[in-house]
Amino acid sequence: MNQNRLRQVIANMKGQGLEQIVVSATASVYYLTGIWVSPMERMLALYITTEGQCTLYANELFGIEPQPGMELVLHSDSDEPTAQLARQLRPGKLGVDKFWPSKFLIALLEARSDITPVMGSGPVDDARMFKDEEERQAMRRASQLNDRVVRAAIDAIGQGAKETEIAQLVETMYSQNGGNRTEGMIVSFGAHGADPHHSPSDVAIQPGDSVVLDLFAPIQRYWCDMTRTVFYQSVTDEQRRVYETVLRANEEAEKMIRPGVPLCEVDRTARRIIEEAGYGPYFTHRLGHGCGLECHEPPDNSDVSQAKALPGMVFSVEPGIYLPGRFGVRIEDLVLVTEEGCEILNKAPKELEIVGK
Amino acid sequence: MNQNRLRQVIANMKGQGLEQIVVSATASVYYLTGIWVSPMERMLALYITTEGQCTLYANELFGIEPQPGMELVLHSDSDEPTAQLARQLRPGKLGVDKFWPSKFLIALLEARSDITPVMGSGPVDDARMFKDEEERQAMRRASQLNDRVVRAAIDAIGQGAKETEIAQLVETMYSQNGGNRTEGMIVSFGAHGADPHHSPSDVAIQPGDSVVLDLFAPIQRYWCDMTRTVFYQSVTDEQRRVYETVLRANEEAEKMIRPGVPLCEVDRTARRIIEEAGYGPYFTHRLGHGCGLECHEPPDNSDVSQAKALPGMVFSVEPGIYLPGRFGVRIEDLVLVTEEGCEILNKAPKELEIVGK
Repeated sequence: MNQNRLRQVIANMKGQGLEQIVVSATASVYYLTGIWVSPMERMLALYITTEGQCTLYANELFGIEPQPGMELVLHSDSDEPTAQLARQLRPGKLGVDKFWPSKFLIALLEARSDITPVMGSGPVDDARMFKDEEERQAMRRASQLNDRVVRAAIDAIGQGAKETEIAQLVETMYSQNGGNRTEGMIVSFGAHGADPHHSPSDVAIQPGDSVVLDLFAPIQRYWCDMTRTVFYQSVTDEQRRVYETVLRANEEAEKMIRPGVPLCEVDRTARRIIEEAGYGPYFTHRLGHGCGLECHEPPDNSDVSQAKALPGMVFSVEPGIYLPGRFGVRIEDLVLVTEEGCEILNKAPKELEIVGK
Repeated sequence: MNQNRLRQVIANMKGQGLEQIVVSATASVYYLTGIWVSPMERMLALYITTEGQCTLYANELFGIEPQPGMELVLHSDSDEPTAQLARQLRPGKLGVDKFWPSKFLIALLEARSDITPVMGSGPVDDARMFKDEEERQAMRRASQLNDRVVRAAIDAIGQGAKETEIAQLVETMYSQNGGNRTEGMIVSFGAHGADPHHSPSDVAIQPGDSVVLDLFAPIQRYWCDMTRTVFYQSVTDEQRRVYETVLRANEEAEKMIRPGVPLCEVDRTARRIIEEAGYGPYFTHRLGHGCGLECHEPPDNSDVSQAKALPGMVFSVEPGIYLPGRFGVRIEDLVLVTEEGCEILNKAPKELEIVGK
């Protein structure tokens, strides 16, 4: 158990009026215990009370070892996995981690009608939102690697290149550099770039295509996540106008980030620039998301975010413009809020680049 | 909408006393609609009633198109995602898909105190458990590919080979053959083989090592999953005894599979063989799991399974013996229950093999 982090979580529980919580997210359990388990359909639940009780309920197959400061209660595939936890719970409110599978919550509610489930991810999420020095270093290292990966991916764009080939190159570079295998990555040529969530296909590059490279992976547990957009062989006036608009939105948003600034204002600044250029309806997502042990985690960086930038936060700044059937542009960095302002973790150049000329 | 499958799901709902269900699993939504979405932290919920109402609530970012027979209700990142669904629900029991994130269920319960959540995956899971002819072909194709992949992996075991290198080769073969990128795979040398869930490391092969290759991936949506264990350069008498025990457990279990046989008896047959050889405590997991659009899905193939083998079921038969600190052996096939008996989908040989001699 990381006792510093546990103390912060318990302080957050008190501040949020939660006397007992169930923590189930792989990354949150790891954050507190150093134990990394992907439970798939099996149960993993770290039960924490404000008095400092800390019990991990886990399937015996995970091979978890006991550790000081944490009680370990194992079950097998043949047991009802929630039975032992259900007996432990106190009556009343139970904070439940946001992604805990409903089947476990329903089983608890059937066993214990005196329990009222409420959202309970806050205490750990709020602690994880503020990266300590060790975590800041991990985030810097991951983004430095991503700068090299995106450069290699751009350099590999040439005649006949396919989205899947670029994706394979990226995956190999990650895996040779401590990256864990991961699902998804976005390499989008031409009209595919207008789908912000496109999966790599076997389409080959065409002159005039935009190329959106949105590359993300956990590097020794901490995620990198960045996007660069380049053009192949030529660029039209409109592509250039869209690119410069997105770049200005990215840069102006990053410039204003410092402790105390509401993130909704950061989103609105970027959004206003895109709206004033006439592309408002084509910026179809929030400006960004927190990033750390998970690719998407608090804080929310959107026009409805209630968070203010505070030292230790890491989040993405990723404005985009997507013109259906035509092309898309997105430019994304991860930034770390520092005591003085904002450190942009990605250093890869952002000037408009035409490759394969 | 696949109307045949929807009819079966509604029939199952009636049989299980469920008038309304929320289907959220990516594979289940795909099974009914042909739409494949990995919603990550966003909401995807297919609401079905026994009267045939079928409404998909989805984030607009998924890019889902309307289709006949299905109402589509979109929300954006700025909306409360469950709000529209909460207004639709009827009072009373609501069947909820087992892995729906608790945050959505808690939000529904806060909005609608007249709702009682119950486990609601049954109607779709039970339909998916019986593969139709199109699905059987997909499962056969995937396992045929896996036979070739495991052969290539075994052939790559030579002096200095590392677990990660074999894993990389497997991943490349999958991705060149229509496999989707996926998390996890088990390539375990020597003592690592005693951990049934070991992740590939940079350890190099040593003479006398057992090599457990548990290879699984979705191939055009349908999963393959098989395990072979071979030995490097030499095999001890005990390794041979363990191997022959696991092989006999695998083969005897497979031999008895035909329509009507309780799966718990299949598990117990394999387990008894291992117990009688004195290794009972070292077979630490169930005999197998259903497999299809998900790697792990119903039916359960364990000593507490309540399912009987029935035509169209596909599941794994994977006995193992794990000797901590020493070595492990697992042999796994996927099998399809047919009208007459059982078709073993994996054809890769299972005789004891010593490589690199």
